[in-house]
Amino acid sequence: LGQRIVIIGGVACGLKAASRARRLDGQADITVIEQGRHISYAACGMPYVISGRIKKVEDLVQRTPAYFERLKGIRMLTGCRATAIDRGRKVVRYLGGAGGEAEAPRELPYDKLVLATGARPVAPPLPGLDLPGVFRLKDLADTEAILKVVCKAKRAVIIGAGPIGVEMAEAFRARGLEVVLIEARGQLLPGLLDFEMARLLERHLTRQGVDVRCGAKLLRFEGEEGLARVVTSSEAATEAVLEADLALLAIGVRPNVELAREAGLAIGQTGAIKVDDHLRTSDPDIYAGGDCAEMRHLLTGKPVYIPLGTTANKHGRVIADNICGGGDTFPGVMGTALLKAFDYTVGRSGLTAEAAREAGFDAAQALVPAPDHAHYYGGAQAFALKLICERPGGRLLGVQIVGPGEVAGRLDTAVAAMSFGATAEQLSKIDFGYSPPFAQAMDALIVAANVARNKLAGVASVLPEEVRRALDGPDAPLLVDVRGAPERQKARLGVGEVVHLPFPQLRKGMAKLPKDRDLITFCWGGQRAYEAALILRRSGFERVRFMDGSLFTWPYELEEDDPGWR
Amino acid sequence: LGQRIVIIGGVACGLKAASRARRLDGQADITVIEQGRHISYAACGMPYVISGRIKKVEDLVQRTPAYFERLKGIRMLTGCRATAIDRGRKVVRYLGGAGGEAEAPRELPYDKLVLATGARPVAPPLPGLDLPGVFRLKDLADTEAILKVVCKAKRAVIIGAGPIGVEMAEAFRARGLEVVLIEARGQLLPGLLDFEMARLLERHLTRQGVDVRCGAKLLRFEGEEGLARVVTSSEAATEAVLEADLALLAIGVRPNVELAREAGLAIGQTGAIKVDDHLRTSDPDIYAGGDCAEMRHLLTGKPVYIPLGTTANKHGRVIADNICGGGDTFPGVMGTALLKAFDYTVGRSGLTAEAAREAGFDAAQALVPAPDHAHYYGGAQAFALKLICERPGGRLLGVQIVGPGEVAGRLDTAVAAMSFGATAEQLSKIDFGYSPPFAQAMDALIVAANVARNKLAGVASVLPEEVRRALDGPDAPLLVDVRGAPERQKARLGVGEVVHLPFPQLRKGMAKLPKDRDLITFCWGGQRAYEAALILRRSGFERVRFMDGSLFTWPYELEEDDPGWR
Repeated sequence: LGQRIVIIGGVACGLKAASRARRLDGQADITVIEQGRHISYAACGMPYVISGRIKKVEDLVQRTPAYFERLKGIRMLTGCRATAIDRGRKVVRYLGGAGGEAEAPRELPYDKLVLATGARPVAPPLPGLDLPGVFRLKDLADTEAILKVVCKAKRAVIIGAGPIGVEMAEAFRARGLEVVLIEARGQLLPGLLDFEMARLLERHLTRQGVDVRCGAKLLRFEGEEGLARVVTSSEAATEAVLEADLALLAIGVRPNVELAREAGLAIGQTGAIKVDDHLRTSDPDIYAGGDCAEMRHLLTGKPVYIPLGTTANKHGRVIADNICGGGDTFPGVMGTALLKAFDYTVGRSGLTAEAAREAGFDAAQALVPAPDHAHYYGGAQAFALKLICERPGGRLLGVQIVGPGEVAGRLDTAVAAMSFGATAEQLSKIDFGYSPPFAQAMDALIVAANVARNKLAGVASVLPEEVRRALDGPDAPLLVDVRGAPERQKARLGVGEVVHLPFPQLRKGMAKLPKDRDLITFCWGGQRAYEAALILRRSGFERVRFMDGSLFTWPYELEEDDPGWR
Repeated sequence: LGQRIVIIGGVACGLKAASRARRLDGQADITVIEQGRHISYAACGMPYVISGRIKKVEDLVQRTPAYFERLKGIRMLTGCRATAIDRGRKVVRYLGGAGGEAEAPRELPYDKLVLATGARPVAPPLPGLDLPGVFRLKDLADTEAILKVVCKAKRAVIIGAGPIGVEMAEAFRARGLEVVLIEARGQLLPGLLDFEMARLLERHLTRQGVDVRCGAKLLRFEGEEGLARVVTSSEAATEAVLEADLALLAIGVRPNVELAREAGLAIGQTGAIKVDDHLRTSDPDIYAGGDCAEMRHLLTGKPVYIPLGTTANKHGRVIADNICGGGDTFPGVMGTALLKAFDYTVGRSGLTAEAAREAGFDAAQALVPAPDHAHYYGGAQAFALKLICERPGGRLLGVQIVGPGEVAGRLDTAVAAMSFGATAEQLSKIDFGYSPPFAQAMDALIVAANVARNKLAGVASVLPEEVRRALDGPDAPLLVDVRGAPERQKARLGVGEVVHLPFPQLRKGMAKLPKDRDLITFCWGGQRAYEAALILRRSGFERVRFMDGSLFTWPYELEEDDPGWR
């Protein structure tokens, strides 16, 4: 008989490892222990069941235990909970199964053990956490529980504006609920987006009827028979009381490492199970993968904890190849995230500008709005795209894309380039596909890469946040709005001293601009502002710069007469 | 005063070079000579004007000469034709302008000259070529001419099934015309797709009412006052007469190199102007870019002629940087092509399997159908994706994607990876974005990369075309259809000896299979066939292989009861 492989966890990583091991080794004795009722389900689809887009929880279940048992010859112990690992005797103890948890623990010997124990939502010990109506979203049981109340509920409060929080805001709105989304930090998707990109998303959520409150901290849940109120504090230290009959705690997840820790396996500095690049733990006969394992960030080389279903699937294959095949490695992650938020898509990978600075990089930023295909074809939608590059060489460090239109493909394209250490210059020269229904002749990524190259070459521009700070400082710059009158009527900056000088009249009108003062040109998205700044510089205005992304990415309030202009 | 830059050609490359040169050098004296009436137009949009998707020809015009003159200080000589280059005196002679072509040629001195003379459609000297109703599609004048007749025409014949031919088939169908698409070679998009991928496209075009005739050669156009008939020959050497009142010749383009050749500049072996990687011609003061210039294929290192608007735009920037800036290079192209064909998208890059073989590569092929996002989310559409990899290392040599759904982003992602010499293994581990509305947890490219890895590791599979050949040979293999009965009812292979053994009953039913005969398992797309082959192999069937892509990519006729099944 073949080697005995025991896998704890039967969702993404665990089942991938089991299936792949079977493909590689027909003789192996493979057992999967899963404490839940369901195996092999698509956890990332849970928000869409709650929104009603997917009809029922069962639609997320891809395979039954019987499928694995009969067709693949994999023993499935569902409803069983592993309680301990005896590394000396190489056995896993577990409860449950036919006899239920009442029976004494049974033992399962292993030659190789795989920990795919997953993660669970973080839940701080706050008052009212156990009130009916307060939920987390970990598994299909949670999904079913939320589904039971979502149609009766009226007011939902979501705590935590990470990807799950944002996806669930859409799901609850789709069910007709009033939704408040609170986030302790100062922006949506903190750590994932830079401030001005997060603000684009925030404005979209607000337009979709989500009450977004950043900088608000959860204090407690209140209610008598069930949830009635969520109480938060803001920076002003005053308590805000939000009426709610449904609350979702989505402030992150923590890896399930108890089994590993009690067995004496090394835990990494992120709190997840430490593994080498073969996904082996500190015990060479025990592997760990998926949401319970630590991984390496490919840009910083540092350990990170970024649990994602796609990584878990990759892990499963690598682990099986190490147990049964020729051996394989998992290099690490880029921190890629992709999510739908109503009519917007948000994609990001690598480091934010802030994270790049913290990691010690001197980072240049290119911030451009761009249509997702040729405007003349019709139906093009503009997203904002940001590239972050290392000075002076221009190596890509990060990408962020927020907006309507086709974001996902550009994200993956940038991720592929970044994975090979691409520079902005290399990116700008790649032979990407071009056809009017799908792209521009110089597509968004190429335009952004060229803007990044211009910045690395010293073209004088200034980010919206820097403009805002300069306006509050001494010697505030004079702002030059180069848009035409009809465009200006739709939206105006509303701060600072602004001179109007439409781009076509620039040469005639520039005489009225001062040469002894800082000038910042701006327009809708930055292109005309760039051209105008170059023309002004050639005409002797040495103190002119242009605003990156201009009004399109201006993260503060605007005077908007036409809220749809953007 | 600054250097004198003369640019011949005012569309993509020429105007990009002019604009970029102005940005880099405010003092340069820049002149653009363009023989047409329009400058700066989006030639790739012409089929969509003809289809009616874009309302009028003028919508393709992005900038007027006045824009360049007034705002950028670039002299625009539209309606002027360059007739000669005197390299000794460094002058360009041209006709036209204010005085028209009647005047004597005028001279324009240059310090640096840019040839962006473009290309023109190939037109073999066949009888009837000049009949009213016979068109080519080169510029906006052609577009306008076709627009004038397209609403009265009833029957169109398109000669040449390259990208333009396919796009124009859609355009003419959109106008309600009967459309015959003839192609001299044996498949659509010859040179761009392998046979089985081209067949997927052909079936889609046929379903959209296009009469596709491959292997048919154009002999002549016939008619009295205007076009009445197109006469072709087929392999059977019989003449076919197609009634038609509109014909479009789209058999490729040829670079406009006459000026360059007469000036004694080197012409490359492809027939386009030879340039170095700075896009300099054999005269260091003369550059060439866009559709008139030769380029290097990044995979073979050989010169190729692949004229595309996106390359022309990149060329413009590189040329200007070499004339006015710090210098820049254009590395070459991957042969990327992207087009819409009714409800399908076709994307390709790198080498086809055939081209890879011809270039001396030992190429492995992974051929997989894959949904464009998580099936449970709803609305997913399946395309066929092919990766071509070098043995034994697995370096990517080519990608082809054909089908509905989101193709363009995957194409660019593969192109980015391929541009950095990615192997299938590297591609399979990239941290791509994952969210159910946009991708699968193991997305199409990752699945295909893993299939390619399996192939490189020796997993025994066989391509549909090889199956077909084996069926005609001695010792024909036994085919094992592992689909369930309802699926089998929709479509059947219709050739060879087929045993039905649904995958879930495989273990019970395998006893009826012979061990002393070649077995080939197949299903809808290859996944179950792969699993079944592994199970059979483990059970002692040593002569089993599975069919890549299975029925989904089967390029021959099927017995189809439900034509929509695929």
